This record gives sequence, structure tokens and C-alpha cells, in this order.
Amino acid sequence: MCRWLTYCGEPIYLDSVIFEKENSLIQQSINARRSHVTTNGDGFGIGWYAERPVPGTYRDILPAWNDANLRSIAHQIRSGLFMAHVRASTGTATSRANCHPFAHGKWLFMHNGQIGGYDRIRRKIEALVDDPFYVHRLGTTDSELIFYLMLSMGLDKDPMSAVQKSLAAVVELMRQAEIKEALRFTSVFTNGTHIFAVRYATDEAPPSLFWRYENDQLLIVSEPLDDDQRCWHEVPAGQIIVTERNTRVDMVPFLAA
Amino acid sequence: MCRWLTYCGEPIYLDSVIFEKENSLIQQSINARRSHVTTNGDGFGIGWYAERPVPGTYRDILPAWNDANLRSIAHQIRSGLFMAHVRASTGTATSRANCHPFAHGKWLFMHNGQIGGYDRIRRKIEALVDDPFYVHRLGTTDSELIFYLMLSMGLDKDPMSAVQKSLAAVVELMRQAEIKEALRFTSVFTNGTHIFAVRYATDEAPPSLFWRYENDQLLIVSEPLDDDQRCWHEVPAGQIIVTERNTRVDMVPFLAA
Amino acid sequence: MCRWLTYCGEPIYLDSVIFEKENSLIQQSINARRSHVTTNGDGFGIGWYAERPVPGTYRDILPAWNDANLRSIAHQIRSGLFMAHVRASTGTATSRANCHPFAHGKWLFMHNGQIGGYDRIRRKIEALVDDPFYVHRLGTTDSELIFYLMLSMGLDKDPMSAVQKSLAAVVELMRQAEIKEALRFTSVFTNGTHIFAVRYATDEAPPSLFWRYENDQLLIVSEPLDDDQRCWHEVPAGQIIVTERNTRVDMVPFLAA
Amino acid sequence: MCRWLTYCGEPIYLDSVIFEKENSLIQQSINARRSHVTTNGDGFGIGWYAERPVPGTYRDILPAWNDANLRSIAHQIRSGLFMAHVRASTGTATSRANCHPFAHGKWLFMHNGQIGGYDRIRRKIEALVDDPFYVHRLGTTDSELIFYLMLSMGLDKDPMSAVQKSLAAVVELMRQAEIKEALRFTSVFTNGTHIFAVRYATDEAPPSLFWRYENDQLLIVSEPLDDDQRCWHEVPAGQIIVTERNTRVDMVPFLAA
Repeated sequence: MCRWLTYCGEPIYLDSVIFEKENSLIQQSINARRSHVTTNGDGFGIGWYAERPVPGTYRDILPAWNDANLRSIAHQIRSGLFMAHVRASTGTATSRANCHPFAHGKWLFMHNGQIGGYDRIRRKIEALVDDPFYVHRLGTTDSELIFYLMLSMGLDKDPMSAVQKSLAAVVELMRQAEIKEALRFTSVFTNGTHIFAVRYATDEAPPSLFWRYENDQLLIVSEPLDDDQRCWHEVPAGQIIVTERNTRVDMVPFLAA
Repeated sequence: MCRWLTYCGEPIYLDSVIFEKENSLIQQSINARRSHVTTNGDGFGIGWYAERPVPGTYRDILPAWNDANLRSIAHQIRSGLFMAHVRASTGTATSRANCHPFAHGKWLFMHNGQIGGYDRIRRKIEALVDDPFYVHRLGTTDSELIFYLMLSMGLDKDPMSAVQKSLAAVVELMRQAEIKEALRFTSVFTNGTHIFAVRYATDEAPPSLFWRYENDQLLIVSEPLDDDQRCWHEVPAGQIIVTERNTRVDMVPFLAA
Repeated sequence: MCRWLTYCGEPIYLDSVIFEKENSLIQQSINARRSHVTTNGDGFGIGWYAERPVPGTYRDILPAWNDANLRSIAHQIRSGLFMAHVRASTGTATSRANCHPFAHGKWLFMHNGQIGGYDRIRRKIEALVDDPFYVHRLGTTDSELIFYLMLSMGLDKDPMSAVQKSLAAVVELMRQAEIKEALRFTSVFTNGTHIFAVRYATDEAPPSLFWRYENDQLLIVSEPLDDDQRCWHEVPAGQIIVTERNTRVDMVPFLAA
Repeated sequence: MCRWLTYCGEPIYLDSVIFEKENSLIQQSINARRSHVTTNGDGFGIGWYAERPVPGTYRDILPAWNDANLRSIAHQIRSGLFMAHVRASTGTATSRANCHPFAHGKWLFMHNGQIGGYDRIRRKIEALVDDPFYVHRLGTTDSELIFYLMLSMGLDKDPMSAVQKSLAAVVELMRQAEIKEALRFTSVFTNGTHIFAVRYATDEAPPSLFWRYENDQLLIVSEPLDDDQRCWHEVPAGQIIVTERNTRVDMVPFLAA
């Protein structure tokens, strides 16, 4: 399972939450090397909004804890809205094109979970993606594919509807193919002004999703960065967090259409 | 334009034609760095048949001339049928999954050329690939896609027919999409016993293809390895070389229909 | 701590012990991802003797479990004497030049352990390496350095003496620099005919070393590949295994001069 | 021979001179692929000063023209003082640790040229580097080594003197070793406030060095970015450019002590 965080608040240097804290994302990865949990050594990525209309990304296939470029870039770049992701492959190849976050136009997207029976319906899902988005598909993962599906379903105009339609379409294709495995989709995506975080699955095991809002800083994470039970809110399954930068967090039920 | 060679004959160490000769493939790449021609610095690959039923492959994204692994592997491995390829990208990403040769089962495939208007008909071609092959698609190139299309069209049973049907299908999709650019397809593929080398294009500019047969050694190359005009035979456009290991070379007209 | 194995016996395909067995080296790495122990995701390497006078090597910085090249090469190459290594960095950079095994001429070398206070005496050790070997130093690790030190101390002529002199020289430099940390050196090295495996430390914690001899197959490993207590022999601290290919294993006391 | 540029002036996005211009650095690299000159496909690097006390760096071993990370980072980062470098290896390995620019503390350094007979005096030069700097040496190039030598010779306190002493020391070691090849050293280095650019060689062939000052923007380059003869000034051999940010450029004779 991958680990990730999204930060929204006053601009801070990326390394302050990715590297520096006792419970930073990289520290968690390093701890994962020494503990019960799966190691996240199959690549990483960061995406951030600075002064340009589109976000920047840096993704590579080395273990994040050993990447001097990541360390330097995260030390230099300051952002009020960014994502970081460390990957534990579920089977697809380790390549830059398969690393999160995925970027397109002003959007960033990252994802935990999987499409059950993906190999059997991959092409049918690909057929639902519009050509202008499909030409940008560089990898082979279900995560990247769902992102382009969401863009095709109108992410720019109505994000909530786009993600619902996308998951509904996938679920329908899974049903037609009589796939027994579940669709699991815990995801964060943003256009630079609004942030969406969904926790959803067709079974009882959607990947975890937490958030914390303190001192005008919102953190949305796959797992809490520290053990302080009071400050982390778990997002229940079937819910979606919606927030605009610098406003309060709303949580609403999420139905895959 | 990529450069490549296929060797068939008594087993030899790969480095003897890839590295050692004055006009080895790597030497050509290095010369390319200093000459008029395009540099082949966007990855490389080798594929070889040894004692196993399936061929081995080694592909990476570094410039071939600087890869210590390639040097060591090519020094160790002896084969009576192998391919080597150095890549100059035509635009698709530099990733291992996009490096030639492509392998599937007992087949190896490499390719020079391109599908005109690829981005506009990529998905339509992908739709023609059978699921059992499509799940192995790891990259995004037209080369890999044509290979899986040929496998879907019966490469195992009737290679000549499979490649003809595949190209015909692509040409038809290009026609429907009113694509003006050409299909160019100069390619070598083998199942370990028979070798096929095609030079074909819908315009007047199929990538070059040469062969030489000396001392029971067959070399099929994108460009001659030396300047000896007598010994290299250029394959005319619209022809296909067919040969069985250790037998004579046949050249027959090739029609993509 | 790194994990590795050395195989000596009738020629076998490398993947049969690296990948295939329930307790293969890669399987151990994958299990490490899910268990208490440190993950070995900081690169890997293989070295093997085939028909050439010098061994082949393939080393890369990706996690071994995800490397398609390793899988294909290990499937193709058959050898009666080979090494495989998966790396967990102790701090030095992840680069190919820092991956084991190290090769020079007919020698292969791999190592578990560390030189205490390495940064403070690195240059003093480097000064003991002969120029013809030093020009081949490509990385920055203490492991590579000890290997070139051993070569300078006469590894070709008298391997036992060379390793003893080398460690004695390092210990003396550590003493002069008043370094309190230990020298730990568990290592396997071979010239293709004789195999040496040392377990040594200046404190009570030399990295583990085991061997098994069954059906004319010798395995020397950092940790047992399975739980069968009877067949694995632990090498005591301060001992060295010496064996010639296809003869019995001797174990003799090892003193760092 | 490598190609590089240093920019100093009002903060601009890095991609505006690295990628965008008709004669940008990357465009030059791509042209090199198609022209007479050596291709720069052996890695690249950027270094920049933003709001932090230390500069940021991003270096990788892929051909620069194909690196999506470089493209995104150069699009996002704005800096009033930065360097970019594309590498054509002169023999040392392609690894990140060998890519320019090199950074230490507040310093950035990049270099064109070579130490004649480097392999024969490498260790003698290394012996002149102070321990606190030597522990940071990660690669094997003469370029990185000269940088750490300059730091050891007092780069922080008296840059002009440090570079002179460093080159004098190297020349003396070359003399003692009776090396006939030349020392060639064309280099740019900066502490974030002052910029130094040296063109020096012990023979008649110091690598080229040019500068242009227009609209309060200083460019120091290995080769002119365009063909406008009037605006590019060639630095004569044996001269050093010294400038403080946002002040005029001085050129003074440079003597290697």
C-alpha cells in the first residue's frame, strides 16, 4: 500500500513535512523498512503549486529515502498546496510513468487502491477515455487510467460528478466481466484551488484516509503522521472531503453514481 | 532513426559484433556522436537465444556506450541468434518498457519506422490486440503495439500472414482517420528458428535494411557495419527476407494486405 | 544489512536459487518488505563464472524484486559458481558503482559489515591501494575499498595472507585514529576456482555467515534460505571457509594478522 | 566537451533559457544530435539560488532532452542566479555523482576540461583535500576533485587565491609525475553573490568561454547561444571573469599561482 500526504495552508518548504518532522513521510518510509508494514521502495513523486498556472512534478523510481534530488528540491520549493507520494508496487512495473502524482493541466491526482480484475477490463476502460487525454497516457497503471477517465468525464467542469461517473463506469464494466474482486479507490485530487479526497470501495476494505486541520494547515494523509489520536480524523468509507484553499473542510457522502 | 543488427550463425559472444569490431554497433553509435547522423542515446536493448525455450533480453535507458552491464553481459553471453538495438527516440518517452527488442514467448521483435498519426488511432489499434497479449503491453510506443497486433493476428501459426494482416489493419485505420502521413515499417522478428526481415512503407521512404551472408554468418542490419560495398545487400522496399537458421536466405515480395 | 548467497556446484540457472525457490534470495527480500527485518531495496548485483576467463556482473539500483532485466538474465545464465547480493544501504549513496559484487580480473567480492569511523580514515586506506587497482575504484563504499586493498596486498598470489594483511592494516589505521567503533567484515570472494568466506569482527557482532553442502552443491549465505536447522552450518566468528570448486569445505581459524 | 550556461540577473524561470529559446541549451543539445558536434547525452544538471541559504541542484543521467522532471522543475523554478550543464563524458562513468554542477554549502561549481594524466595523480590530489570536504566526495571525476581542492584551499575566504593555489598544486603534481598532457580548466563557480569564470590551460587549447551582458542580464556560456557575433564576448585564455550580482563584469588576468 502506498503512503502519501497532501498539504494545504500557508506556503511552506516541502521538506518540512516530507523529510524533517519526526514523523515525516520519508521517516515513515524508513521506519517501514524496519517494521511490520510494507516497505515503500518502488518510487515516489511530489507535485506542487507555485506561481505557474500548472503544478510542477518530480517523480523517480529510486527509493525516496536515498534520492539526493528529492532532498534538494524539497528543500528549495515552497508551496501552499502540494502532494507527496511513496509507492509500494502492487505488481505493475517500476517506471517513472507509473509514479504518482499524475498531472494534467492544472490537476494533480494520486491514488491508493486498485481495480479488481484490472487486466480483464483495462482496454474497455481505456476505450472510455477521450482521445485528447489518452494521448497523454504514458504508463500502464489503473491509477493513471482512472485519472484520465475522470478528466474525460468532466473533471474540469464538475469534479464530484466526474469521479462518481468514472467509478460507476468502472463498477459497471467489472459487473459485466463478472469480476469478483473489489474496486478500491482512496484518492486525492486538486485543481489548485479545490481539493477532493475520496475514500471508497465496493467491499469493506477501502484504503485508509485521514485528515487534520490545525493552525490553518490542512493535512490529508493515507496514514497519520504521528500518534496523537485527538488531532487526526479518519474519513469514513463512502465519504468525500471537499475543501477550497483556506476555507473549512466539508465532508459529504460519496456515491459512485 | 534507430540502429540495429540481427546475427544468425555459429554461436559467438555478443560483444564480438556489438562492441569489438571497428564498425561494431556501439562504435557506430559513438561515431554518430561525432558525425552528421542522429545520435542513438535514448536507450538500447539486446535479445538472444541460448539454451532456454524463450529468449533473454536486457534493455536499459542509458546511452549504450556507457553501460557497464551491457559490456559485461555481451562479453559473457554466446548465442547463435541474437539482436541488438540502439534507440533514437522519435518522441515517446525514454523508459525501459519502450526499448527494443520486445519479447513475448519465443518471439523477439524490433522495429524502425512509425505509424503516421499514431496518437489519433492508437486506441483503435489497441482494440485489435487480443487480451492475453494486451496485458503484457508495458509501454506506449507504436513499435510495441504492432508487435502485439502481429501476435494477435497469428504470428505463431503463420508469421507472413500475421504481419501482412497487421499492417493492412493499420493502413485501413489510417485511411479511415484520413491520416496523410505514411506508415513505415522496417522490422526484424524471429521465433528462434525462422527469421523475418521486412522493409515496407506506404510512401517512398521505408527505413533502410541490409543483409550480408559470409562464412555461414547472416547479419541483418539497419545500416551496413562497414563500407565494403560488395558484401552488403540492400533489401528493396516491399520485400521480406525469410530464412531458417543455418539455411539460405530467401527474399520474397511483401504485400501488406 | 545486506543479504547474499554464493553457489558452487554443477552448473544451474541462476534463477533457480535467486528467484524460484520458496526461500530464494528475492523471496527473502520480498518477505523482508513484510516483516521485521530491514528491507533490501537499495540495489542488487549478480556475478557469475561461465566460459570466459573473467566473471560477468550485472548490478543495478532498482529494488531487485522489480527488475525485469535481472529476471531475464538470471533465467538465461547457467553457472557453476555465482554470487547474488541484495543491498540495504548503510548510508552511502545508491549507485551502480556501490553495488556488490565487485569484480576485478578473475575475482569477485562481496561484503557485509563496515569499517568503523570510515570517513575519518577513508583516505588513509585509499593511500594503501596500488595505483593499477585504484584507477578502477568507481564508488565510495568501504566494501569496494577493502577489495582493492586486498588486491594490492597480493590477493592473486596468497589470498589468505592478503585478506589478513588488509584487515590488519585497517585495524591499525583505526587504532591510530582512536576509532571506537568496530571493524566488521563478513565476506565471500573467489577467483573462479577457490572460494573464501570470512566472518570476522573486532567486536562481538560479526555479520552472520552460513553454509550448506548437499548433493555436491555448496551454498554460502548471509542467512539461511530455509528453516531446516540441520543442514545449515553457522561459521563461527574468526573463522574462514576455504574451498576449491568441487572439493570439500575446510574451515580454519582466521586471524587478521 | 560539455555545454553549459550561467545566468545572473532578474529572477526568471529556468526553462526560459534552458528550454524555450530557439538557441536554448537543450535545443543546442538536440541540434548536436543532428550536427557535427559531440552529443551531450551523458547526463545533465541544474543548480540555482532561490530563497534558501544554499543552492538547490537537480542532476540525472538521462539525456536532458528526454527528462520530464527537468522540464517540469525548470518550468516552476525562478531564480536570479543559476547554472545548467549538459554532459558529454570524457571517459568517467555516467552516474549522478559525476554530473555537474557540484554543490557544497553555498557554492556551486561546474567545469569543462580535464587534468592530464588524471589516473596517475588522482590520489595525490585527493591527499590535498581536507577531510571535512573529502567525506562529501561521491564520484570519481577530476571536476569534483578540483572543486573540493578549491574548497580546501580557502574558497570561502579568498576565491581567487583558492583557485590559483589549486591549479598550481595540480600543475606541480603533474610536473612531478612527468605528465605530458595538459591541464585544461574552464570553469564557473559562485557562492550566490559573486561569480567567477575562469578560462585556463597549460597548453593552447583551453575550452571556450563566452559572456554576454544585455538588459541587466549576464550570461556566461561554454558556447554562444546564438549567432549574433556582436553581443558575445570571448574570454581570452588566462583570464578570469569576476562579478558581483547586479554589478558590472570585471575581467582580470588569471595566473595559476
